[in-house]
Amino acid sequence: MAQQHLDPTDPTAGAVTGDALAGYLRAQATEFLRALRLHRETGGGAANGSEEAVDAARALRRSARRISASLHTFRPLLDTDWSEAIRPELAWLSGTLAMEHAYAGRLERLLLALHRLSGATALPAQLGANDVGGAGAGAGAGSAETAAGPPAAAPTPERGNLTVGAAKAGALLERQLTLARTRAHSTALQALGSSRFHAVADNIAVLASEVPLTPAAATADLRPLAAAAEERLTDAVAALPLVTAGHPYNAEALIHGLSPDPAPHPQDAPWHQVRLLLRLHRYAREVLHGDNSPVDMRLLAAGQALNRHRDASEAAAAAAQAARTPRIAPATAYALGVLHADQRHEVEAARFAFQQSWQLQTVSTP
Amino acid sequence: MAQQHLDPTDPTAGAVTGDALAGYLRAQATEFLRALRLHRETGGGAANGSEEAVDAARALRRSARRISASLHTFRPLLDTDWSEAIRPELAWLSGTLAMEHAYAGRLERLLLALHRLSGATALPAQLGANDVGGAGAGAGAGSAETAAGPPAAAPTPERGNLTVGAAKAGALLERQLTLARTRAHSTALQALGSSRFHAVADNIAVLASEVPLTPAAATADLRPLAAAAEERLTDAVAALPLVTAGHPYNAEALIHGLSPDPAPHPQDAPWHQVRLLLRLHRYAREVLHGDNSPVDMRLLAAGQALNRHRDASEAAAAAAQAARTPRIAPATAYALGVLHADQRHEVEAARFAFQQSWQLQTVSTP
Repeated sequence: MAQQHLDPTDPTAGAVTGDALAGYLRAQATEFLRALRLHRETGGGAANGSEEAVDAARALRRSARRISASLHTFRPLLDTDWSEAIRPELAWLSGTLAMEHAYAGRLERLLLALHRLSGATALPAQLGANDVGGAGAGAGAGSAETAAGPPAAAPTPERGNLTVGAAKAGALLERQLTLARTRAHSTALQALGSSRFHAVADNIAVLASEVPLTPAAATADLRPLAAAAEERLTDAVAALPLVTAGHPYNAEALIHGLSPDPAPHPQDAPWHQVRLLLRLHRYAREVLHGDNSPVDMRLLAAGQALNRHRDASEAAAAAAQAARTPRIAPATAYALGVLHADQRHEVEAARFAFQQSWQLQTVSTP
Repeated sequence: MAQQHLDPTDPTAGAVTGDALAGYLRAQATEFLRALRLHRETGGGAANGSEEAVDAARALRRSARRISASLHTFRPLLDTDWSEAIRPELAWLSGTLAMEHAYAGRLERLLLALHRLSGATALPAQLGANDVGGAGAGAGAGSAETAAGPPAAAPTPERGNLTVGAAKAGALLERQLTLARTRAHSTALQALGSSRFHAVADNIAVLASEVPLTPAAATADLRPLAAAAEERLTDAVAALPLVTAGHPYNAEALIHGLSPDPAPHPQDAPWHQVRLLLRLHRYAREVLHGDNSPVDMRLLAAGQALNRHRDASEAAAAAAQAARTPRIAPATAYALGVLHADQRHEVEAARFAFQQSWQLQTVSTP
């Protein structure tokens, strides 16, 4: 890859030019094509994708996101017509491919929470083996005083000792989210077989060999554009209610927990937006630093907190949605109410974690 | 009052003797009799006590608690037969008198929480005027970023903009807790008219003039007994899971939120115990310091956190109990589930607040 491994924060160092961008895009396009081939070979078309097919789909999304983000951040250096045509197609593709995974993760998160809230030490084996974090992961859960052992310590495949309400709530969520997941799987398969997708794949195949840079791009400096992406992130973070988020137990996240408003959590939107801007910033750093990209642990922690925020927000909405199912038992509805509130507190905890990691970052930056 | 205003933490200072204890007990007994007279004069017997009657009942409980606590802490200095006979009677009295107030406070706390969770800015006037703290009181709620105004700012007497579920849950809690409160009121009235109570009042009347000290008490030092009370407190605090409590969002308090166990929160008991020991320590300090007792702000904050812990724990149990009412609507049960989880998070927040205040205390004590 034709990249210059220079420190972009050092103004006296040489510029990182369009060549680095071209190299990054070619590498991501190659990765995309490799993942696509792998996905086809590993039977991505089966009703329930194998582990390899899941990995391949993840790799597809991963490179699609990076290509799309780079086209956005470094827009002035690329052929406008081409990049404006392909970006929405990449967004459609990664969005479509992400749904199945999202529903699976949401169900896993909610079932784990139900077991945690039931004080059940025995978790379903297929859940306990994975590492989807419950509440409090990384916040005292590992301390010596935590009474319960690690979930993986007792991976018996029983339903545990759930109440009728919790068991019924779990069954309801499993039914609804498995149905949604199956539909998302079919939609993804249809998408991957569509002529729309083949057009995207053809475009990416061209990108793997030839990046449509503007004539000026070869000598243009990438760093001002990357800095602009970082500035958009910084501005969005500055608009977040971080003072409140930094006070533990501020009880803000659940404040519309029983609101009659059908879209009760507009307060989450700015955080979701920061999550996307943080990703753009991270990918821009990858373009500048190439394979030598130093891992910024604080950026990583902030990003993980925002992922957790998004996951908990959507899981809380799924629990609230399930509670609106007609003719459910009161005990089921009660369990879903507890579950909803629990996930909203996860939202609040994730904001606190973000505030903590971001604060460290600001202090350490000169 | 025959008290010696010396610094009991200074080992070179003169001892505080049984005279100080006698003075304290006489003063509390006098206060008890004054409150009793006031209670009778202000129509404490009416179906719903007037504000003066409520104040009088509070003063009765206040002095009964202090007499009982002093008899316990300074047991070796008092006539054993007498103090062992009167202590259970005082506990019965203050327990009986406390119930009505407790049910009223619990209902107020739960209705305020329902309104907060509904994002309703309009609170019932009779609630908004009081200062029963909702979640987050003192933890960021006062920051400039908190969107909602203070509850008292909009004291319109409407039901606000509650969902059907929240409104029904509120009505159910109001019915159940008002019934419990009315029963507690009758029980308290019966108690105050009983011969059992008259025997207690006679005993207190004697105490107001003559405290049955042991012969050795007049010259005995009170401080070792007070120090023993403090040590019992310190030992109990040391056994609390304070490391976990000090990690915000540890999600411990709700860990049995859906447990089938009918007594799902044994984890609260050690905290309730510390609350009682803290009170004994505080009253022992009053005996030693007399009217000059310096206000220890940290002890005050720790005590308030433990009161909040107890209140939230009992409110959470009341919400869970209400959800077991037969034939309620699923929407009602859902709202009660959210409410239960919210109050359990208040429990967790109170533990965090206690840990924070206690930690400060330990650091500042040489």
